Amino acid sequence: MRREEAPSCGGELGAHSSGRRRELICVRSPGTSLSGALFTFDREATTTVTTLTMPAPVTLGEFDEIFESVKNWGRWGEEDERGTLNFITPDMVRAAAGLVRSGRQVTMAIPMNKTAGPDNPSPVVYHLVQGHDIAIGSGALTFASDFIGVEFHGDCHTHLDALCHISYKGLVYNGRPAQQVVTSRGATALDVTAYSNGLVGRGVLLDVPRYRGVRWLEPGEAVTRAELEAVEQAQGVRLGEGDIFVFRTGHHRRRLELGAWDNRYPPAGQGKAGLHVDTIGWMHERKIAAFLPDGDGETVPSNVEGILYPIHPLQVTAMGMFVSDSLQLEDLARACADEGRFEFMVVGLPLRLPGGTGSPWNPIAIF
Amino acid sequence: MRREEAPSCGGELGAHSSGRRRELICVRSPGTSLSGALFTFDREATTTVTTLTMPAPVTLGEFDEIFESVKNWGRWGEEDERGTLNFITPDMVRAAAGLVRSGRQVTMAIPMNKTAGPDNPSPVVYHLVQGHDIAIGSGALTFASDFIGVEFHGDCHTHLDALCHISYKGLVYNGRPAQQVVTSRGATALDVTAYSNGLVGRGVLLDVPRYRGVRWLEPGEAVTRAELEAVEQAQGVRLGEGDIFVFRTGHHRRRLELGAWDNRYPPAGQGKAGLHVDTIGWMHERKIAAFLPDGDGETVPSNVEGILYPIHPLQVTAMGMFVSDSLQLEDLARACADEGRFEFMVVGLPLRLPGGTGSPWNPIAIF
Amino acid sequence: MRREEAPSCGGELGAHSSGRRRELICVRSPGTSLSGALFTFDREATTTVTTLTMPAPVTLGEFDEIFESVKNWGRWGEEDERGTLNFITPDMVRAAAGLVRSGRQVTMAIPMNKTAGPDNPSPVVYHLVQGHDIAIGSGALTFASDFIGVEFHGDCHTHLDALCHISYKGLVYNGRPAQQVVTSRGATALDVTAYSNGLVGRGVLLDVPRYRGVRWLEPGEAVTRAELEAVEQAQGVRLGEGDIFVFRTGHHRRRLELGAWDNRYPPAGQGKAGLHVDTIGWMHERKIAAFLPDGDGETVPSNVEGILYPIHPLQVTAMGMFVSDSLQLEDLARACADEGRFEFMVVGLPLRLPGGTGSPWNPIAIF
Amino acid sequence: MRREEAPSCGGELGAHSSGRRRELICVRSPGTSLSGALFTFDREATTTVTTLTMPAPVTLGEFDEIFESVKNWGRWGEEDERGTLNFITPDMVRAAAGLVRSGRQVTMAIPMNKTAGPDNPSPVVYHLVQGHDIAIGSGALTFASDFIGVEFHGDCHTHLDALCHISYKGLVYNGRPAQQVVTSRGATALDVTAYSNGLVGRGVLLDVPRYRGVRWLEPGEAVTRAELEAVEQAQGVRLGEGDIFVFRTGHHRRRLELGAWDNRYPPAGQGKAGLHVDTIGWMHERKIAAFLPDGDGETVPSNVEGILYPIHPLQVTAMGMFVSDSLQLEDLARACADEGRFEFMVVGLPLRLPGGTGSPWNPIAIF
Repeated sequence: MRREEAPSCGGELGAHSSGRRRELICVRSPGTSLSGALFTFDREATTTVTTLTMPAPVTLGEFDEIFESVKNWGRWGEEDERGTLNFITPDMVRAAAGLVRSGRQVTMAIPMNKTAGPDNPSPVVYHLVQGHDIAIGSGALTFASDFIGVEFHGDCHTHLDALCHISYKGLVYNGRPAQQVVTSRGATALDVTAYSNGLVGRGVLLDVPRYRGVRWLEPGEAVTRAELEAVEQAQGVRLGEGDIFVFRTGHHRRRLELGAWDNRYPPAGQGKAGLHVDTIGWMHERKIAAFLPDGDGETVPSNVEGILYPIHPLQVTAMGMFVSDSLQLEDLARACADEGRFEFMVVGLPLRLPGGTGSPWNPIAIF
Repeated sequence: MRREEAPSCGGELGAHSSGRRRELICVRSPGTSLSGALFTFDREATTTVTTLTMPAPVTLGEFDEIFESVKNWGRWGEEDERGTLNFITPDMVRAAAGLVRSGRQVTMAIPMNKTAGPDNPSPVVYHLVQGHDIAIGSGALTFASDFIGVEFHGDCHTHLDALCHISYKGLVYNGRPAQQVVTSRGATALDVTAYSNGLVGRGVLLDVPRYRGVRWLEPGEAVTRAELEAVEQAQGVRLGEGDIFVFRTGHHRRRLELGAWDNRYPPAGQGKAGLHVDTIGWMHERKIAAFLPDGDGETVPSNVEGILYPIHPLQVTAMGMFVSDSLQLEDLARACADEGRFEFMVVGLPLRLPGGTGSPWNPIAIF
Repeated sequence: MRREEAPSCGGELGAHSSGRRRELICVRSPGTSLSGALFTFDREATTTVTTLTMPAPVTLGEFDEIFESVKNWGRWGEEDERGTLNFITPDMVRAAAGLVRSGRQVTMAIPMNKTAGPDNPSPVVYHLVQGHDIAIGSGALTFASDFIGVEFHGDCHTHLDALCHISYKGLVYNGRPAQQVVTSRGATALDVTAYSNGLVGRGVLLDVPRYRGVRWLEPGEAVTRAELEAVEQAQGVRLGEGDIFVFRTGHHRRRLELGAWDNRYPPAGQGKAGLHVDTIGWMHERKIAAFLPDGDGETVPSNVEGILYPIHPLQVTAMGMFVSDSLQLEDLARACADEGRFEFMVVGLPLRLPGGTGSPWNPIAIF
Repeated sequence: MRREEAPSCGGELGAHSSGRRRELICVRSPGTSLSGALFTFDREATTTVTTLTMPAPVTLGEFDEIFESVKNWGRWGEEDERGTLNFITPDMVRAAAGLVRSGRQVTMAIPMNKTAGPDNPSPVVYHLVQGHDIAIGSGALTFASDFIGVEFHGDCHTHLDALCHISYKGLVYNGRPAQQVVTSRGATALDVTAYSNGLVGRGVLLDVPRYRGVRWLEPGEAVTRAELEAVEQAQGVRLGEGDIFVFRTGHHRRRLELGAWDNRYPPAGQGKAGLHVDTIGWMHERKIAAFLPDGDGETVPSNVEGILYPIHPLQVTAMGMFVSDSLQLEDLARACADEGRFEFMVVGLPLRLPGGTGSPWNPIAIF
């Protein structure tokens, strides 16, 4: 006999809808069709025109060329385990703290989701361990405690990836053999404890749906380097060395409004919006330290022939980039609009988990 | 057939010993006995003299009086779920960020401990979910992922307590009925998501072993209000409204050097060092926002007759204080000595866990 | 980044389809309509005619009368924890063993299901703990080990219910207070260890779809006392004191052929086929010792006004009956047909789990 | 704040001590020393004399010869996954059922142990999922449910081993490559579902402590082929083709009376009593189908140079033997004495766990 289900604990729709909602206006220019359309986006925005080209397919050979061209192996020594976090200097941490003015703090995590669904095949295992019904031998005092279990590399669990998480051609970051680095009992190197002192730096949000004037990007849509640069220009920001790139596609907003969907490839799933592979070189040139997307940066179906998920190996394996997946950027997008700026201090703190290939986490922006 | 155990993944002794160790010098004045002794502590310290009085036993009646006198129920409204976090204003967040100068980041978490032991009866459940041996249908690309499960309110799991965690006489913070607030399926209110935007503020370390000139406090030793004030004076700091009180007894250092011990009451355990209950009034007057101790603040055996753990109900239930347990403050103590100051920015980020009575976490100090 | 899913490990369709399938023949008598139809069922069967009446709704008052009329509280003493297992005498165990002739063994469990789905919101948590890549310090020897975690009272996890599992009006079997018997840390009495020596006895399959000449009963269809007696007659068997009633609706066959569905009430779910409450008196009179259904015996929507799941409280709470849920009886149905008999030895062995409200298990029939 | 621990749920001392205890009498013959002693064992026993020789060390080369000599690879076909279970014919199942006379059922499992200890580094994870405080929308009806998680290949979790569990020189039973058979996501072949129809057969207890007239064998003591044959003779039984060998060293009795100990090699552990490797040939010649020991059959330290655990690879990898570990045979030993016979029907039922390297279980003897 199964329990009757209580309403999903993972749904934060109420929380969101209780916040105020900006009215987004989508004005399509006359005479344009939906694909390749010109968009103006919202009230405050200057009229911005961009052409949405179909992403050109990239061959596997070209993928390997990109891989080689952005490879940071050995850049910070053979023993390095911090990758692009090395771009963040103490001065940059101080400068990031200097961005704190209003004191507003904004979570970028999805509430942990205990309910199985199309993008949550491994729901969070959550149980009370002890309730307030249990006397502890101390007068009228009781302690309630609980257990949380999470297979955190899931499509709706906000988490980060350790550098051991991804291998390409049998190697992980810095050219180490993947199966030596990750054994059946966990990682022996390049685990998440390399990040135990936390991610602290200047975050910059590039809000693509805002730029396009849409509520969200549809599954399969890829954002190119050209568009990223156009978003920067429209927002009046520029990402540079040691910056934390916060990338919004509206994935989570779509989920809140239309319901969860399966992010995998057709026919099982419907895919997701993300980056075009041509953005990789841009991130490499700009010396981005960390990448915090809603969705996970991947466009599904991808733009690379024969590689289902090309962004992760280029970021994590080749560049040694600090990467997080499945953020919730709706609160942040509203906060940026309210605060009138797209830069802020970011702090993200992984669990100190020896051997871990990543960690669930709850990074925040501070304004 | 059980596996042969690999060396404990939880032990970070190597990490510690690879850092540089300050030489602590304990000079006992001639003619003094060990209890009630005079200590000078370390090279840089001015000679500080303090009398170590035995904590006077507090009766249950007196405990209840303290409880009433520090009760913040209703102070921030009947619906309040943030308790003493309300003391931290946006201005204080900005001021805390202003403390960031060197950019040094220091974890205050114990590495998550997967190995059962005297203070770890519920070791972290950690498993690989998938290794780099599994093809994902994408050329030479593989993803390693894992699972973490943790009963986090343990004596060697760094975690925080939600306000629903402790009840006294059937009530939790703000006077709500404990068994309605925490059901067998988790908390319905006052859960850890009240803290989802994180703890950000000015942290101040009061380093009692440093003050006393000892390596650590022994189990059963209680720190009184008078001694806290003496430590403040010796360190040249003062805790005030909205501050985060970081309290070091050397619990974790003792564990690293002597090995784990059972923190419970004799005869099962050996107890632990912590606060005397007379410090509660001091925290209340000072309007402390959060409390981050090694150990968990409790002195075992306690100073209160009939209450095994008096500090938690006074802090969490009566005051609605943001409380964390089982921090690792050894790295922080060294950093404070290196940086020559005992104040810093603190950021702590709980998992966004609906219903949770707390969360494992990894708070950091930024200098 | 989530893994690409391997094919579900829970699907045993291959196993089933590799067995031979009997051809079921449904011959509808001329001039009858589908509802209220007359069926003859299969080649071997004598022509059996039965009228399928709609189950009459039972009021809550009538439910309570049934509850009182079948209540076995105190029948085997105030301290009894075995309930209807007391009906099985040592002689009956010996007689059951005497049914073993061909030596054929048949599992009645569904393969443990690790894949979330409409009837599996809490999939089995399964992880390798250690693989054959880990040297154990013993030459060329390795041990692979794993972890299984299961929230076993689910609609597609084969399990049994301990007598503490169900409460009605605040009481569990034998009139004990439910919240004293089950605390937040597990059961203090009437737990599954009352059954640690196992269920052993004579099993009798009543195969309702076979009787009706259908592949399975549709969700919402209820089997009445009259029909059970007709099935007995058609099959040439009779259930009596101490017998184990194996009840087939074809639930699992429907799942294998049409796919999983949500068993809950509309609109969330589609319901399921099971018993009419008028069968409870029959089970009580016959002194049935244990009940092993596919589905879980409940008809959803139920025949009782105001009680979503009336069968369980009548069986478990009132009668103290040994009850299992979510069996897989397809292999058994074929075995019965092959062996030409509907009775067999049953052995079912719960895990010896102190405090457990039940256990996952894998009961078998031996012919 | 950790909970105060309730008394261990794993301890079944009460259950044992509530049963009656036979008085064991140890009469040493005059003039003998303790090692190499002559024993008479108990009141009913005829005087039996045996010489306890120190087990001769076996070289790695000799181990490999034994491995080759008992190898059943290919014996039942290249695709075979049942190994020595093939020895049990339907006739033997019927004959085993014929042993049921008194109807007495006896569990051979240790209660599942939720408390960490020297032989239980991975305690059972057990939590209530829902208690009787949760309304399910159905009047006065509530369901309590729970979760069990177990890393079951532990030294005090009663479990069985699938044939994929052990590899020697990179190969598992039938010569398959170990790392193909067990991936990081579970077994692809030779998993525990090969045993889903259960273990049913004639069990024979060889009770070595009873034979020796001691309460238990001490850690490090090995039982030789000669002693097994002497025990058979003394007990008046003989194991033959298709039999289930139940092997008692008194491991669990020692645990109940002296407390748990670490079973591993010195210096971490104290070892355990088990089989000498010279018994392997005996099991092979006798065509034993299954092996059910307390302890796990291994003598620690072992009798083989360079192999920490020689019994498992010989049984599981070479012979393809059905093997269980960590049984509790105290109830069985008493039952055999009461019933006046050492043979009985055995039924053991693994969970139907696809991919599993074994399963927790609760096998029983039926007299």
